Amino acid sequence: MSHPKENEYVIGVDFGTLSGRALVVRVSDGREMGSAVHPYPHAVITSALTSDLTGNEPVRLPVDWALQVPQDYREVLQQAVPQAIAAAGIVPDTVVGIAVDFTACTMIPTLNDGTPLCEVDGLLAEPHAYAKLWRHHAAQAQADRINELACSRNEPWLARYGGLISSEWEFAKALQLLEEAPQVYAQLERWVEAADWIVWELCGEYVRNACTAGYKGMLQDGHYPSSDFCAELNPDFATFVEDKLDQPIGQLAGRAGTLTSEAAEWTGLREGIAVAVGNVDAHVTAPAARAVAPGQMVAIMGTSTCHVMNGAAVLEVPGMCGAVEGGIVSGLWGYEAGQSGVGDIFAWFVENIVPRSYYDAAESAGLTIHEHLTELAKDQEVGQHGLIALDWHSGNRSVLVDHELSSVIVGQTLATRPEDVYRALLEATAFGARTIVEAFNNSDVPVKEFIAAGGLIRNSFLMQVYADILNMPVRTIGSTQGPALGSAIHAAVAAGAYPDIHAASEAMGAAAGIVYEPIPYNVARYEELFAEYTALHDYFGRGANTVMHRLKRFQRNAMERAAQPVGAGIILTN
Amino acid sequence: MSHPKENEYVIGVDFGTLSGRALVVRVSDGREMGSAVHPYPHAVITSALTSDLTGNEPVRLPVDWALQVPQDYREVLQQAVPQAIAAAGIVPDTVVGIAVDFTACTMIPTLNDGTPLCEVDGLLAEPHAYAKLWRHHAAQAQADRINELACSRNEPWLARYGGLISSEWEFAKALQLLEEAPQVYAQLERWVEAADWIVWELCGEYVRNACTAGYKGMLQDGHYPSSDFCAELNPDFATFVEDKLDQPIGQLAGRAGTLTSEAAEWTGLREGIAVAVGNVDAHVTAPAARAVAPGQMVAIMGTSTCHVMNGAAVLEVPGMCGAVEGGIVSGLWGYEAGQSGVGDIFAWFVENIVPRSYYDAAESAGLTIHEHLTELAKDQEVGQHGLIALDWHSGNRSVLVDHELSSVIVGQTLATRPEDVYRALLEATAFGARTIVEAFNNSDVPVKEFIAAGGLIRNSFLMQVYADILNMPVRTIGSTQGPALGSAIHAAVAAGAYPDIHAASEAMGAAAGIVYEPIPYNVARYEELFAEYTALHDYFGRGANTVMHRLKRFQRNAMERAAQPVGAGIILTN
Repeated sequence: MSHPKENEYVIGVDFGTLSGRALVVRVSDGREMGSAVHPYPHAVITSALTSDLTGNEPVRLPVDWALQVPQDYREVLQQAVPQAIAAAGIVPDTVVGIAVDFTACTMIPTLNDGTPLCEVDGLLAEPHAYAKLWRHHAAQAQADRINELACSRNEPWLARYGGLISSEWEFAKALQLLEEAPQVYAQLERWVEAADWIVWELCGEYVRNACTAGYKGMLQDGHYPSSDFCAELNPDFATFVEDKLDQPIGQLAGRAGTLTSEAAEWTGLREGIAVAVGNVDAHVTAPAARAVAPGQMVAIMGTSTCHVMNGAAVLEVPGMCGAVEGGIVSGLWGYEAGQSGVGDIFAWFVENIVPRSYYDAAESAGLTIHEHLTELAKDQEVGQHGLIALDWHSGNRSVLVDHELSSVIVGQTLATRPEDVYRALLEATAFGARTIVEAFNNSDVPVKEFIAAGGLIRNSFLMQVYADILNMPVRTIGSTQGPALGSAIHAAVAAGAYPDIHAASEAMGAAAGIVYEPIPYNVARYEELFAEYTALHDYFGRGANTVMHRLKRFQRNAMERAAQPVGAGIILTN
Repeated sequence: MSHPKENEYVIGVDFGTLSGRALVVRVSDGREMGSAVHPYPHAVITSALTSDLTGNEPVRLPVDWALQVPQDYREVLQQAVPQAIAAAGIVPDTVVGIAVDFTACTMIPTLNDGTPLCEVDGLLAEPHAYAKLWRHHAAQAQADRINELACSRNEPWLARYGGLISSEWEFAKALQLLEEAPQVYAQLERWVEAADWIVWELCGEYVRNACTAGYKGMLQDGHYPSSDFCAELNPDFATFVEDKLDQPIGQLAGRAGTLTSEAAEWTGLREGIAVAVGNVDAHVTAPAARAVAPGQMVAIMGTSTCHVMNGAAVLEVPGMCGAVEGGIVSGLWGYEAGQSGVGDIFAWFVENIVPRSYYDAAESAGLTIHEHLTELAKDQEVGQHGLIALDWHSGNRSVLVDHELSSVIVGQTLATRPEDVYRALLEATAFGARTIVEAFNNSDVPVKEFIAAGGLIRNSFLMQVYADILNMPVRTIGSTQGPALGSAIHAAVAAGAYPDIHAASEAMGAAAGIVYEPIPYNVARYEELFAEYTALHDYFGRGANTVMHRLKRFQRNAMERAAQPVGAGIILTN
């Protein structure tokens, strides 16, 4: 290489739910030199494909859909990467590698050359031709069937996923595509994780990363679910794996290929530099947080929370998202669990629940609305608001794995103020985290440390609530850009600057952030509230009252009726 | 009398939760000539007695308190009555009688001359010296003891109240006063319903009305609960009835006395005109709605809803508020039931839950926020919002009689919009109403007609929801001022213009309003949702999960700790 290591840089690009962020990092010591963010122009599409996409009439989406536009991802490479280089004030030629991490499981249907189907003539107005974001929750019926069948057939892989696979994952989403849009499925040639698709765009090679193949594609011990199994789900699904899914696997921090001339032009980087195998936002954060030893749970707290932790052996944890060999770093079993809504819930709250006067007060105090609500809520005594909430606004990933669940709030009265509900929602997500930690502890995969990363660590009150409710110290990562830093660390290994991820993490990982110690007085009070949370969790989540499932069914039926053209049948009002 | 009936007028004054309204009505045909409203300057005091009242430091109130200031009631006589006469354009001398109705059970502690204790030197800063509004819910512990004792002693009057008496009523509130502020109790000479207090102010006579004495004071078959019973509750309570409560009873529509010179000066009316016995807002509305026959249920829908209905005989209806002979009109048994929060819930929602953008949109559309939300919600299909709520933000009056209950909302997701929740809350109150109607039907006191009165009847969508959920036609009263008109009808009888309330109702009652017929398509869908409501109602309300009681306890404990001066013990944050 032409540059000594201390003048070499790598770029990590973190593709989140709403935007992509590029970060320039010095290879020698992990110093963060500069970054830039590019929001996806189409964000998350939940109600309708707009005319600018379809080239014609808007196309309404059913309930629980969440789509994205792949071109938005390319724009991150074109915009955020050069901006980050400029912000870092470095010479682009000193960048020796690039790596990306992505939300998962986010799936793009493509042709054999990687062209997304939504860019193919005649498919622009077809919802199933777009990228299905991780939080697309409309494949629950397919997930239910996969679970039932796997259970009845005693499929050996099922235990690796805590006994239940999620509607968010590759097989459920693909089966939904087949069954709802067989004509699109016929045109589908590759069913690609977005993480791998963007790497494909960078280096021209389609390499499937070991992480998502294992966690989201059910690749265990070298095998996907059998064609037999798939055929039993649907005869037309029999050859799904061999026809559309199977692809060489790349190990994490390996090199997928080198930067193409086209991608060099987009990004301003040198053609031919190392492009790492794709990875997942949560999983890359573990090395960024220097937390790759067994028992170190890293919670990446953003719109959702993903919990990743290495373990020495494989054991079944009920409701975990998965245990994958080498799924976080090679040589260890990577465990993953998750909460499908966390920051998303707080954002929903401030957008839909907080009255005008609170925005005005926040503005005059020079605070964000989240900061203002936190200020109002933080000095309350534990239990003072009289509320208990379930954090299922986006369903439940761990430990119930049921996206037909929805939220509950108990205890509102005429005296309940927005800050009370806000605090109850913060606490609800912490109770959800504790439920996960307990599932691990009760399965002999003990959680010894809890390290928090992600955007929500900025809220120190929230961190204290987590410490109090978990009754464990919560250590935050000393970087505001954990995933992008983690990707950069992977890029450094892929570029050959370090022999493995352990060495790179050691050299480049972030310094420790703040440690929040539990306050015993609060811990004792939260114990009581956690018992209430658990009772409601089990009542609504474990079958005693399946009202949430029925409400979803009512909702779907009602949406279908509402979508019928006027005069086509039912008269909606008198 | 000096004026022929067609030129004679009466005045009804309706004392609501937040304001008092005076209405001038023509005696001959019930024509509404003019009205005026005066809001209570101190509205409802729930958090603290302010310095203007205490003359010193503010005094913080515990959870669930709700106080009012008697002077605010006098101001209604001084302001609203003359304004209504002016608006009516009549000569004050043509007014032949005045009657009032009031919220109940709202209690004022007074001296023997009617002076409220909060106007007595030394008691200005004493919360227990103020009027306790009907929705003061801090005497639940006392109500619980009254219920337990009555049950264990087999008190014959208990069945007349559906098996449970409410913390809102005279005995529970008095016992709370005795036990929390014995020094105030010692100064208490008369424990007076606000309805009777304001009549006392008008005519200088303290007459206890048969309605509240029966419904709120447990006067049955001529007897209050025995001194034996009271002594068992608390030895110091043994002589409560004879010392502080007992007083001659006035029948409804009877004459309590004549207008004093002082009250004539306040109101601008002639000294010596008839002043009717006090009454309750809900109960006076039945004659205003021409609905005094057995089986005609009148729901007065405002901040709360009160259901009144006459029956030919007395039967026990579980969870009803009471059955009182002559409690609505003489000669029949008056049944009462109630929902402690209805319009209050909608108001709480728009104040605390609705974001800025909705207010902006309402403003530009020239709509109130309630109208705007209704517009957004009304064309949804039944069940489309995916929500089910319990309407217990202010506890539950009928049929559970438990003010420690609080609300629940199940089903919120990241896609839930404010109009969805708003609609779910409207529906929740209708489910609550249906629960009451079913309790009557199942007790052989059939509800044959449902007549709606009160401010909420302006919302035609809400009325349609009630018709669909009750699966009964809902007829609205053809007056926007039902209670004030009802009081005026009582004034006409007290003034001798009609022989009884039946004749006065016939001549002066409002014309029929709109009739909302149930839409069979919606009825069928709401049946399913009502089953979900009932399941949650019973789970949270009948003992399966008493989480709401525990949350209230946590809240009270937390409030107490929060009220401790800093440094007095507990360190609240690290």
